[in-house]
Amino acid sequence: MPEPAPTADRRVALLIEEGFDDGEVTGVIVALHAAGVGVTLVGPWAGRQFHDKDHTVTVSSDVAAAKARAADFDAVVIPGGYAPDRMRMRHAMVDFARDMLAAGKPVAAICRGAQLLISANVLHGRTVTCWPSIAIDVKNAGGLYVDRPVTVDGNLITSRKADDVRAFTDALVAALTA
Amino acid sequence: MPEPAPTADRRVALLIEEGFDDGEVTGVIVALHAAGVGVTLVGPWAGRQFHDKDHTVTVSSDVAAAKARAADFDAVVIPGGYAPDRMRMRHAMVDFARDMLAAGKPVAAICRGAQLLISANVLHGRTVTCWPSIAIDVKNAGGLYVDRPVTVDGNLITSRKADDVRAFTDALVAALTA
Repeated sequence: MPEPAPTADRRVALLIEEGFDDGEVTGVIVALHAAGVGVTLVGPWAGRQFHDKDHTVTVSSDVAAAKARAADFDAVVIPGGYAPDRMRMRHAMVDFARDMLAAGKPVAAICRGAQLLISANVLHGRTVTCWPSIAIDVKNAGGLYVDRPVTVDGNLITSRKADDVRAFTDALVAALTA
Repeated sequence: MPEPAPTADRRVALLIEEGFDDGEVTGVIVALHAAGVGVTLVGPWAGRQFHDKDHTVTVSSDVAAAKARAADFDAVVIPGGYAPDRMRMRHAMVDFARDMLAAGKPVAAICRGAQLLISANVLHGRTVTCWPSIAIDVKNAGGLYVDRPVTVDGNLITSRKADDVRAFTDALVAALTA
């Protein structure tokens, strides 16, 4: 009998809000499912619909951020688009990401997802990449900005844009199986 | 014969990009026209169409930012929505706003318009209000954040959101006639 995949019992929280980047959300879900990883969509409320920034794709949240506990997840993904502009004002989402980082679990932010990490005040001295419009915000928050498809600093994994999803999810799956 | 209005020869540059907040752009144009002030839409290119963030309103740019000179305008308005996320990556727009501020002319930013001023690196020690999602970015950039409908610090005028347009344009018109 083959051994189960090392990711078979892994579960990732994917934060969701209005205006997400579809290439990032769908791309991450497809890649994680392909790796055998479960994905739970964590929104400001459970069972609500959210649209991508071009209003062409709709997804539903599974769990409310206020009910999500770091102990129940192996990693968190923060997608980009304009969703992080809303997520960063949701204290439960900011606190959840901070708790995951503090627990040493992988926190993976792509595109403008780093905005939430600025609001969580966790970037000081950490190497980070992001969408270029917010690079100065990352630097002003004490982050060490680099322009790379993916960068891994301890349990913090960051990427720039939807085109980087493969490198981003490869790094995340590697962290989940480390 | 009545004297001409004190604003009759005033001309304001309104920065424009994709994803602007319609309540802010339309609201500012209506209020400035009512005060007798001319408005020129300054985009990344001249003669292009731009849509608001809800894709319901279209406006055309009059002038390219690379051709806009501070000497030709009496003030600049930076509207919000998600347009500033794009504007802040346009060097000509960032430089134009910085030149206007350095020339002592009114620079008026509403909502996320302050993102462009962060990228211009001009907020250190200045009192600023903005949309709450970027308040921490303004503070990290050295700005002194306040939560008010409008705040005026020297020639820098800032407001939080479309609901503040009246206070915002009143302060701008006052600055234009000071």
